[in-house]
Amino acid sequence: MTTDAASPQLPNDDFHVFDTTLRDGAQREGIHLTVADKLTIARHLDDFGVGFIEGGWPGANPKDTEFFQRAAREIDFRHARLVAFGATRRAGVDVAEDPQVAALLDSDAPVVTLVAKSHDRHVELALRTTLEENLAMVADTVRHLRAHGRRVFVDCEHFFDGYADNPDYALSVVRAAAEAGADVVVLCDTNGGALPARVDATVRAVRSATGARLGIHAQDDSGCAVANTLAAVDAGATHVQGTANGYGERVGNANLFPVVAALELKYDRRVLPPGALTEMTRISHAIAEVVNLPPATHQPYVGVSAFAHKGGLHASAIKVDPDLYQHIDPECVGNSMRMLVSDMAGRASVELKGRELGFDLEGDRALAGRVVARIKEQERRGYTYEAADASFELLLRDEAAGARRRFFELESWRTITDHRTDGGMVNEATVRLWAKGERVLATGEGNGPVHALDQALRTALERTFPQLARIQLIDYKVRILEGRSGTQSTTRVLITSGDGRAEWSTVGVADNVIAASWQALDDAYTYGLLRAGLRPEE
Amino acid sequence: MTTDAASPQLPNDDFHVFDTTLRDGAQREGIHLTVADKLTIARHLDDFGVGFIEGGWPGANPKDTEFFQRAAREIDFRHARLVAFGATRRAGVDVAEDPQVAALLDSDAPVVTLVAKSHDRHVELALRTTLEENLAMVADTVRHLRAHGRRVFVDCEHFFDGYADNPDYALSVVRAAAEAGADVVVLCDTNGGALPARVDATVRAVRSATGARLGIHAQDDSGCAVANTLAAVDAGATHVQGTANGYGERVGNANLFPVVAALELKYDRRVLPPGALTEMTRISHAIAEVVNLPPATHQPYVGVSAFAHKGGLHASAIKVDPDLYQHIDPECVGNSMRMLVSDMAGRASVELKGRELGFDLEGDRALAGRVVARIKEQERRGYTYEAADASFELLLRDEAAGARRRFFELESWRTITDHRTDGGMVNEATVRLWAKGERVLATGEGNGPVHALDQALRTALERTFPQLARIQLIDYKVRILEGRSGTQSTTRVLITSGDGRAEWSTVGVADNVIAASWQALDDAYTYGLLRAGLRPEE
Repeated sequence: MTTDAASPQLPNDDFHVFDTTLRDGAQREGIHLTVADKLTIARHLDDFGVGFIEGGWPGANPKDTEFFQRAAREIDFRHARLVAFGATRRAGVDVAEDPQVAALLDSDAPVVTLVAKSHDRHVELALRTTLEENLAMVADTVRHLRAHGRRVFVDCEHFFDGYADNPDYALSVVRAAAEAGADVVVLCDTNGGALPARVDATVRAVRSATGARLGIHAQDDSGCAVANTLAAVDAGATHVQGTANGYGERVGNANLFPVVAALELKYDRRVLPPGALTEMTRISHAIAEVVNLPPATHQPYVGVSAFAHKGGLHASAIKVDPDLYQHIDPECVGNSMRMLVSDMAGRASVELKGRELGFDLEGDRALAGRVVARIKEQERRGYTYEAADASFELLLRDEAAGARRRFFELESWRTITDHRTDGGMVNEATVRLWAKGERVLATGEGNGPVHALDQALRTALERTFPQLARIQLIDYKVRILEGRSGTQSTTRVLITSGDGRAEWSTVGVADNVIAASWQALDDAYTYGLLRAGLRPEE
Repeated sequence: MTTDAASPQLPNDDFHVFDTTLRDGAQREGIHLTVADKLTIARHLDDFGVGFIEGGWPGANPKDTEFFQRAAREIDFRHARLVAFGATRRAGVDVAEDPQVAALLDSDAPVVTLVAKSHDRHVELALRTTLEENLAMVADTVRHLRAHGRRVFVDCEHFFDGYADNPDYALSVVRAAAEAGADVVVLCDTNGGALPARVDATVRAVRSATGARLGIHAQDDSGCAVANTLAAVDAGATHVQGTANGYGERVGNANLFPVVAALELKYDRRVLPPGALTEMTRISHAIAEVVNLPPATHQPYVGVSAFAHKGGLHASAIKVDPDLYQHIDPECVGNSMRMLVSDMAGRASVELKGRELGFDLEGDRALAGRVVARIKEQERRGYTYEAADASFELLLRDEAAGARRRFFELESWRTITDHRTDGGMVNEATVRLWAKGERVLATGEGNGPVHALDQALRTALERTFPQLARIQLIDYKVRILEGRSGTQSTTRVLITSGDGRAEWSTVGVADNVIAASWQALDDAYTYGLLRAGLRPEE
């Protein structure tokens, strides 16, 4: 990568989608990114088509320095420019002598975002310098980076609070940055306290007073970060900062996904490369996996529940026309509509779900009634079928057949976990079951008791059902159902399995994690064998 | 409870805080409320001081019918009125003959919210009646309920989409409701597709065209429900609907907590009884417990992370003045500031955290450096100290002492879980350890292997340390750290314990849930004994 005041403009330079997941997003409680994580996320963001990826603060943190070196070498960005984040020079120091500023140049990132104080109180209390020196720090640092061929954006920290307290000073910081050559001056609601009406009025006032190109950086402490970002765009901002899934310090940053979706679908403004929006759900979930947080199920547009309908009223209307209860077509963002099976939904959604699975429950009201009753009873005990389609289908098949039909019947199992005197650990499981009229006894070992049980069950079944070899366990989730009762709580386990072509989920509920896991494993292999074309004996 | 057109006005009748957690909130995927759950939530909402609690749809659902009977009998509401939800009469039916309308009266709720169609397309496609008949259905039903002494609010479903498509018809529904005697006409963004600027303009237009008292019901599909609600208030709405924690269909409803906090703290408008706002965090978490969802950690105002600071920049500034990075004083909403210990934070926040715990890390830079290095290493292995203060303090103590200091040393443990042929289940654990120079062997049983291990450990230690009797395990959480690798993943366990005066949390990480639980139990009892005033031998 070369530094490039002269390089071609980005296609989207009239409107910037600026991602700061790797810097501000990483400040979220619970996120700990390795350099490899950061590289993977940068690739996802570039695929999504954001214009700018703020990678971190080179020099402040060895991990960030390494990230910039490796990103330049290892990633062939198709859409995004890498951005280094840093601060204006220190008070009373020549900008050319400031090692922090030198580290920004050393990163070789073509764009630098400088954080500048714009609230007089912060200049005095946190920076401990004079208001005049702060203006000189902004101007000097912008000019220095411009002279070295960098494009510069200036983040005015605490701008909205600063503008409310001392508008003249806040405006003088914007002017200092713009006059020194900053391309964009970004107004930051750093503490997240602003509401949309104030953001709109402030951005309009700053635009008219300074003529500078403005950006917006909103935090979600008031629950309005997406709306604040859109309010700034309404008021003329042409640069929006945000993070994937809204990750960030405290409550989080503006979530870039609903911002971009609103701009594309509701403002009819092209801010991403063609076709990119349909990748949004996939990319949101992929980034959640990298940061090792479960994807937020109720996130706008991309959450697994974002187009999931449960109310009976909605289910009946959706049988008529799905658009009656959807603000957009979920496929525009790569998501899909789901009908939930639940005691709230009643017969209409069980019938719709049955139709999805190929059962004519509308033609068999008695069966539909039995299924609804059985689900209510199971949900009372802690089961959930919303996230366990395969267990739901087995329940439906059993009710339709009038009997529990399986490929094998359990006699007993046992697990032993032994933390030995020498510090070594052994997990062993034994399973006794009947399959095709034969009694089978098998033992398995694993790195935990559930893994050992899974190995024992596989060993017991594989001779009779060689089709099992293709079935893999993909995901395993544990949920303690009663939060305030210590290690005695009920446990729910959800297992996702796959055969290379499809994935399915199963559920188990019991007093303890091993017994709950057994049930989910039992359903997982039963469903997998059904998918492989086998049929259980009557 | 009596029906009461004549009863005294509520103190807050000039502005309504209307909660629909028990109806719309219950439509959230993953929520399944019993009647007892609904009664408990209603008590919390009344404590919080909302003016109206929508309890459900009597007649449509036997659970809701029972709720209204029991709520009237069992709850002595101090602030709230109960509201029954229902639909306008069916097309072509005399309102006095409609059993659904009769059920609303039978509920004895003093207030009824009627859902009415206001989007012409929905009238024709979903209701399958004429536009004229729909207006008659609205007017007849409102008049009928008014004649029976009920106060009536009308929810105009899909109002914003309806107004965009056919403003004249949407306005005629508002007029029909108001003229028939509805106190408030609530404009609903049922599909959640509206953005604040449109909400503001629409509410202003409807107010000026009809003069009706208006309310707002926003869904969060665009991520703007809180902002949309505030935009409607800016435009003159005096009735806001929302749910606790934003629970609701699909993405959810407007979260009542940030709405109310913004009105009280930023609009300086008294919408709750005096002092109630400081209960908000407690009530948010209590309701999450009842609905059996973990409290959203990053929720504005009330999330455990809402005032948690991680960035090194923030930590340094907060050492100067906490208000520099907070939009409100967290105590106003019953929350508190937290400094997070993490590799992001660096020395400044480890020092602040040490100060909280009584360690002078600022005076011992070498110790601070060792602690930061140790934390980074542990976090790389999957530990997290952000949620495990007690494990962090033990780490700090060990580093300060230069050695691992404990009350007991493990020799070995073993757990057996046996699902027997007769269907019975036995969980047994054996622990061998050394305490005060003596070797102790103990066995425990439990309803799961971790519970059995806990019992064995207690039995082993209780004779030597009778102080253990006061220590209870309160909460137990399991997290699988790698999502896509089946039952072989790394497991992190967080345990919260208490001694009746304080609670503390500890962490364990291992290949399997039992070994991880052991570590967290070890730390939990060690910390508990320290709290009881014991000191480990050198």
